Amino acid sequence: MTERQADIGLVGLAVMGQNLVLNMNDHGYAVAVYNRTPSVTQEFMAGPAAGTRVSGYTDLAAFVAALKRPRKVMLMVKAGAAVDAVIAELRPLLEPGDVIIDGGNSNHTDSTRRSRALREAGLLYVGTGVSGGEEGARFGPSIMPGGHHEAWPLVKDVLQAISAKVDGAPCCEWMGEDGAGHFVKMVHNGIEYGDMQLIAEAYHLLSSVGGLEASAIGDLFGRWNEGVLDSYLIDITAQIFKHVDQDGLPLVEKILDAAGQKGTGKWTATDALSLGVPLTLISEAVFARYLSALKDERVAASGVLRGPAAPEQQTGGLADGLAADLEQALYAAKIASYAQGFMLLRSAAAEYGWHLDYRAVARIWRGGCIIRSRFLNDIAAAYEATPDLPNLLVAPFFVRALEGAQGGWRRSVARAVVAGVPMPAMGAALAFFDGYRQARLPANLIQAQRDFFGAHTYERVDRPRGEHFHTDWTGHGGKTTSGTYDA
Amino acid sequence: MTERQADIGLVGLAVMGQNLVLNMNDHGYAVAVYNRTPSVTQEFMAGPAAGTRVSGYTDLAAFVAALKRPRKVMLMVKAGAAVDAVIAELRPLLEPGDVIIDGGNSNHTDSTRRSRALREAGLLYVGTGVSGGEEGARFGPSIMPGGHHEAWPLVKDVLQAISAKVDGAPCCEWMGEDGAGHFVKMVHNGIEYGDMQLIAEAYHLLSSVGGLEASAIGDLFGRWNEGVLDSYLIDITAQIFKHVDQDGLPLVEKILDAAGQKGTGKWTATDALSLGVPLTLISEAVFARYLSALKDERVAASGVLRGPAAPEQQTGGLADGLAADLEQALYAAKIASYAQGFMLLRSAAAEYGWHLDYRAVARIWRGGCIIRSRFLNDIAAAYEATPDLPNLLVAPFFVRALEGAQGGWRRSVARAVVAGVPMPAMGAALAFFDGYRQARLPANLIQAQRDFFGAHTYERVDRPRGEHFHTDWTGHGGKTTSGTYDA
Repeated sequence: MTERQADIGLVGLAVMGQNLVLNMNDHGYAVAVYNRTPSVTQEFMAGPAAGTRVSGYTDLAAFVAALKRPRKVMLMVKAGAAVDAVIAELRPLLEPGDVIIDGGNSNHTDSTRRSRALREAGLLYVGTGVSGGEEGARFGPSIMPGGHHEAWPLVKDVLQAISAKVDGAPCCEWMGEDGAGHFVKMVHNGIEYGDMQLIAEAYHLLSSVGGLEASAIGDLFGRWNEGVLDSYLIDITAQIFKHVDQDGLPLVEKILDAAGQKGTGKWTATDALSLGVPLTLISEAVFARYLSALKDERVAASGVLRGPAAPEQQTGGLADGLAADLEQALYAAKIASYAQGFMLLRSAAAEYGWHLDYRAVARIWRGGCIIRSRFLNDIAAAYEATPDLPNLLVAPFFVRALEGAQGGWRRSVARAVVAGVPMPAMGAALAFFDGYRQARLPANLIQAQRDFFGAHTYERVDRPRGEHFHTDWTGHGGKTTSGTYDA
Repeated sequence: MTERQADIGLVGLAVMGQNLVLNMNDHGYAVAVYNRTPSVTQEFMAGPAAGTRVSGYTDLAAFVAALKRPRKVMLMVKAGAAVDAVIAELRPLLEPGDVIIDGGNSNHTDSTRRSRALREAGLLYVGTGVSGGEEGARFGPSIMPGGHHEAWPLVKDVLQAISAKVDGAPCCEWMGEDGAGHFVKMVHNGIEYGDMQLIAEAYHLLSSVGGLEASAIGDLFGRWNEGVLDSYLIDITAQIFKHVDQDGLPLVEKILDAAGQKGTGKWTATDALSLGVPLTLISEAVFARYLSALKDERVAASGVLRGPAAPEQQTGGLADGLAADLEQALYAAKIASYAQGFMLLRSAAAEYGWHLDYRAVARIWRGGCIIRSRFLNDIAAAYEATPDLPNLLVAPFFVRALEGAQGGWRRSVARAVVAGVPMPAMGAALAFFDGYRQARLPANLIQAQRDFFGAHTYERVDRPRGEHFHTDWTGHGGKTTSGTYDA
């Protein structure tokens, strides 16, 4: 192996790392690879990488020495301490101007911390989200890089080359400073949780109230994939319902209903709480996974807790427009979810001083990633028309879409409520939509209560903002306003 | 002032601190007080404390020197850095066996940290929640102490003396180790957020769909306060709706609908996400406050986003049972909310190794605090009958209560959905109830999707737990299962 011939190096040969390497190789890049466990490197070189220009190393210094300057080292290792460990090993081997690219699912706060530490060390840092699962990694993922802007020209070609393309445009654009790339990826994953939960709720209503079998549900999702819901997740859902087990029965029905998760949905909801953003749908999707995991408790409760008195009266099959209503409900709830997701991006940009291009975010999610959909074109168009759009819900296109879809949305949620079918995400989205369009919410009562028991003061609708009033509601309270009691 | 005569010392004379001191004085305790700003101490001594046995100090060493051994110093200062600062000042002045009592709204993780640090220093620590607002502090709050169990006999008498009493029992019992007291207080506050949001949603439906004026709503809450909803928050809500402004119009309608918050609700929701507990109602209540704060955005959106086509058709006043249904809805949603809150307590106890007595928690919340209610007797009774109850929802009393109330609950939520009135908390609670009682949720589809795009594997209903399967759904995927891609 000649020295200094690799265009880029990659550390970490789990499935995502392996596939990204093969993807880079396909696009003409010479890739050097290293894995902590040497046998993994050896098996990769002897297996999937056989006959390629990929070069494998079992020594980190030799691996670094094989890279063209300025070196680009992409890490595809487990998020958390492993990333810091690899960076610590690499630092003494790298030179000022070299680039470390973290392509794992790092938390954005870790990425911001690493970004600042590496800048002090004279190294360039890119923290990038990579979405698309193993298939995406192999044939074109959505890539969301952020970090040191000076690094972008050095990594742009290779990252855009391996990314998915939609209408000829790469699904990879610069997101912003420090942890912005990983933040965008986190929101992507949160939205993915939401989309999956919405689809699961539709399945529940279709099977419980509609009485549909798996195959018919698959047909329906297949048809929906030709309309406004056209998306990867709807497409694979149709395929899943068609997949039969060895005994000829639908495999999906053999799968245990206890959903796992790896934390990015939880991060999204936690960050929304921290940033003051009403991200209700994704949070409900995360909580729904938690509830699903309580399988034994639910089985026990199902024998004790009765549902509506006569749910069978609600079982009207598809005759009463169940499927058509649900298609509208899925579409409208999805709009609300993405509106919430972009609210979170806007709040983060304001909080962290990032310059996020919301149109670019929507565009790079159109292909390669799990949430790719036709719908993202409409979001990109909305931000193209109005870059400082306060909220997706008020973009003219979505105003009209919601006007058209809300009838079916309301009927679907009401049907579930009456029938006893849980639709936490779809219902939360509707409550959010109905809340967002209220000039007046009942929070005046909450402020009155807080002033009553805690002297927290309130503002008035007939006085300018910023003037605070306290009322002695009982006639025997004190005049002191509270700075201590929290509620 | 004679030295060493005070039974207890209190640092921090904001409204809560002042009122606790006067409360202790009423119960025969000699209290020494200190405040960082001396003028506050002087004003307190010349004003509310004039003629009492309270002794004021402007020097911290003199304050400490005035306390009987082992000294008990209660801090009522702003949660966060101020608590650490006061502890740092006190430490050199205290001796082994002295007790520091933090009565502020500290985060339980801070309390656990302080508990461990003070144990190493030979000091005893009590972190206690105190709820009840200024009125409660003055005449009997609910007090939730945790920390070093050896400190409990030293502080039990004074804390129980000043606490509220219900049926002769003090609303103050030992909660558990380290930060357990502040955790219980945090959950109390989260539940308070939920109760307040539920009441606000009922108000919204009564005024929007029911067409009721403030005075009639006040009457209704007054009547509800004589039934299963009997509670402090329902009571003050009735009073609030009756309170008129100087112009004779209802004051509540002059109050701006942008709810503030001081973080304990957010902490509760964040901890639930972290501990894997589906705490949906409180989270929606927190998000509802966030949404309320977006007043300008909502006003703008209200001119653009239309609601249901003919909402006025839904306005049937009270003739169709709106109020009776809503009473059931408030009751049932409240049961679900407390069930979620106690789920969070159980998870925390398991995670942190605390020995929480759920009956005691319910009992000390019956008086003094913001969420005090008749209902908490039923919760205490449920835990008395079955101390290891897996969930409040399956206690026989609540099974029956939910069976009776769910009709009105479903009709209320459905009415709001159709009319376009947001009821995020009431709807979330119903979806949770309907989810919890499902032996089977649609999470099998989510597991299929995760295995499809990320090779995350799944378990099967026809195989033992712990066996993981992967399917090549498309027929051209790899055999590798993923340990890297997170979804």
